[in-house]
Amino acid sequence: MKISHIEHLGIAVKSIEEALPYYENVLGLKCYNIETVEDQKVKTAFLKVGDTKIELLEPTSPESTIAKFIENKGQGIHHIAFAVEDGVANALAECEENGIKIIDKAPRKGAEGLNIAFLHPKSTQGVLTELCES
Amino acid sequence: MKISHIEHLGIAVKSIEEALPYYENVLGLKCYNIETVEDQKVKTAFLKVGDTKIELLEPTSPESTIAKFIENKGQGIHHIAFAVEDGVANALAECEENGIKIIDKAPRKGAEGLNIAFLHPKSTQGVLTELCES
Repeated sequence: MKISHIEHLGIAVKSIEEALPYYENVLGLKCYNIETVEDQKVKTAFLKVGDTKIELLEPTSPESTIAKFIENKGQGIHHIAFAVEDGVANALAECEENGIKIIDKAPRKGAEGLNIAFLHPKSTQGVLTELCES
Repeated sequence: MKISHIEHLGIAVKSIEEALPYYENVLGLKCYNIETVEDQKVKTAFLKVGDTKIELLEPTSPESTIAKFIENKGQGIHHIAFAVEDGVANALAECEENGIKIIDKAPRKGAEGLNIAFLHPKSTQGVLTELCES
């Protein structure tokens, strides 16, 4: 697998509105997009930092996986997303060959319209890991 | 504050030896340095990815904060470190002006000899946040 960079870091927050002043006014980062991903029941805010992004994730329903994450573990870093250069489908095939448990058997559309797939934290030392189209 | 990029992501693992095959053989990243930070009771392994790094953190003693983190929350992403352009001391002063709770009142030496300081997760929506010399 060839990873070019960390595409984004997903951070679970109770409220984007309450979190943004810290990221914008204290850290000096800029939010350039807010969108809702209906099928994930999540509102997302994106901030660029170097060649990666911070994706703030606010649940829009108590059934959202992000709501459950916050309930179990509290607010915090939820996942890391790597940009793969040779396509997500190829990367998934490589993972399976290496015995890595995967959550998404095939790429699906994520935020910002990218092809994405998640690996299972059981195979990645507890780190929920997303592979993204570069 | 002016942040240039994410300097590194700290990931707590039980064993660097067991984690490295995933990062090197599956993800294709390369570990370029392993060092022990005695006062933090931690062994660290660094892998470069884009303009940032992954820092694997293995406790060298049950009293290590990383050992306690793994005991309480399991293995996983432990902290995010931002590279600040105008010095860690200035950044800390800005944080205090903005009412952000800080852990290190003044910069101290971290891994790779960088000046660093940690902000308190209570002020950062649960994300343990490090500021690093750029």
